[in-house]
Amino acid sequence: MEWILASASPRRKQLFKRIVRRFEVIPAKGEEKAEDWESPSELVMTLAEQKAREVSLLPEAKGKAVLGSDTVVVYNGEVLGKPKDEADAKRMLTMLSGKAHQVYTGVCIIAPNGMRAKGAQSTDVYFCKLTDEKIDKYIASGSPMDKAGAYGIQDGGIVRRIRGSYSNVVGLPCRLVRKLKKHVEKVGQ
Amino acid sequence: MEWILASASPRRKQLFKRIVRRFEVIPAKGEEKAEDWESPSELVMTLAEQKAREVSLLPEAKGKAVLGSDTVVVYNGEVLGKPKDEADAKRMLTMLSGKAHQVYTGVCIIAPNGMRAKGAQSTDVYFCKLTDEKIDKYIASGSPMDKAGAYGIQDGGIVRRIRGSYSNVVGLPCRLVRKLKKHVEKVGQ
Repeated sequence: MEWILASASPRRKQLFKRIVRRFEVIPAKGEEKAEDWESPSELVMTLAEQKAREVSLLPEAKGKAVLGSDTVVVYNGEVLGKPKDEADAKRMLTMLSGKAHQVYTGVCIIAPNGMRAKGAQSTDVYFCKLTDEKIDKYIASGSPMDKAGAYGIQDGGIVRRIRGSYSNVVGLPCRLVRKLKKHVEKVGQ
Repeated sequence: MEWILASASPRRKQLFKRIVRRFEVIPAKGEEKAEDWESPSELVMTLAEQKAREVSLLPEAKGKAVLGSDTVVVYNGEVLGKPKDEADAKRMLTMLSGKAHQVYTGVCIIAPNGMRAKGAQSTDVYFCKLTDEKIDKYIASGSPMDKAGAYGIQDGGIVRRIRGSYSNVVGLPCRLVRKLKKHVEKVGQ
């Protein structure tokens, strides 16, 4: 089965390489939106499906499986996506500093025959206590700007510990993806 | 695995019995709606998922798999659901008489662990030429009122022939359901 990863994230690409040797990358461009959701799991599954769907409609996706994925950070009932600007990144990192939050990643695979499989996972993340100076330095590095919650777990000195899947926090829960992939390969041709 | 069928349709119940011996029936009550869809397949998958989701959130659905299903008739680009009243049924049956249309059924299963699998199918249906008198009689029987496109394929003298799955026209494509079920039993616990 031929695969397309509908994401521009180099971190997702790296993780997906562990699961599928060869695939194309065609990032979804459209602005995903979900207004009607009851839980963060629901939200990320819906957004992941929107990304996969957009790419699956392209002529070059015909006959291929498309994987979409979406990650959000949830702190105290607030859903954090990517920061809008540096001030927003500062607000997020200040809020998360020294506290625990959840990371939700949703995955949706659209099979060549149109069947869809999706799922979501959450991981508890415990942040280091970050000084103002450290936050400013981190933002100046540029790394926070394209990441949900304004941080990357792979960047050192930010996350103290996690409970649950690491790859889920990076943006592509490997175990879940393997499960969905197995299904799609069986029934999606 | 324990199963719930999220549909009030006795026809779906009958078909589902061929696939799963024992299950509960808890019909979804909410008004499903989908405004943003690119194709009838997309539409029926979305509506099927909304039904399954509504029921899966009930406390009595905890630990169980929930199946939702939705069927529409598509004629000449128009999507026909259940008729609003007898006049609407008459309009639909007059329109479909002697012509070919498509029936789309979408199926979504939500697994106990929250994973979702969905798919859709279409069948071509060729209608008999129906006289005005026959249409009035059929509407008077009451059968059209709870059915997409205002007819049931199991009611004699309405459908001349079909191309594709019969159970899909009745409202639950058995082959597709079996595929999705197999998947859910493997990865949805």
